[in-house]
Amino acid sequence: MLSNELEQLRQQLDGVNNDLLELINQRAEIVQQIGQVKNKQSINRFDPVRERKMLDELTQKNHGPFENSTIEHIFKEIFKASLELQVDDHRKALLV
Amino acid sequence: MLSNELEQLRQQLDGVNNDLLELINQRAEIVQQIGQVKNKQSINRFDPVRERKMLDELTQKNHGPFENSTIEHIFKEIFKASLELQVDDHRKALLV
Repeated sequence: MLSNELEQLRQQLDGVNNDLLELINQRAEIVQQIGQVKNKQSINRFDPVRERKMLDELTQKNHGPFENSTIEHIFKEIFKASLELQVDDHRKALLV
Repeated sequence: MLSNELEQLRQQLDGVNNDLLELINQRAEIVQQIGQVKNKQSINRFDPVRERKMLDELTQKNHGPFENSTIEHIFKEIFKASLELQVDDHRKALLV
């Protein structure tokens, strides 16, 4: 009985994991496009003001269970990875 | 023209950020429920085998643009935060 409950919850979790994977990569694609537009305009890719604004919006909308500090931490990791992706793209563009 | 393009991409990004926020917290709620079931069964909350399995499934399904190593890194941060949440819940339950 309880094992069954656990199994069902795990299936739900796998579903959410897959949705998260899709969204994280979808976000990365948008960030790559932003990087391309910024390259054309010679705008610096790292924009700490915009990043702070996004974090503030997210924590304002956050109703938990995660604390705001945890949401900030997770999103900062996603932002950092996205920036690294843009830097890689830029490097590849320079090598072409 | 380009600024407009940038503005549109940023709006898309804000939308994805909000969806990610919802999903990350939805995932946390499921993990909390799993923690409750595990408490009843006295199963240890940290299950490295299950964690490895989830990471393997995610990297198998990953088609980028993020590298598998980046996906693993981001999800490990989410796993770690989820485990901390379960530990907090357990501590609160003990204090009641």
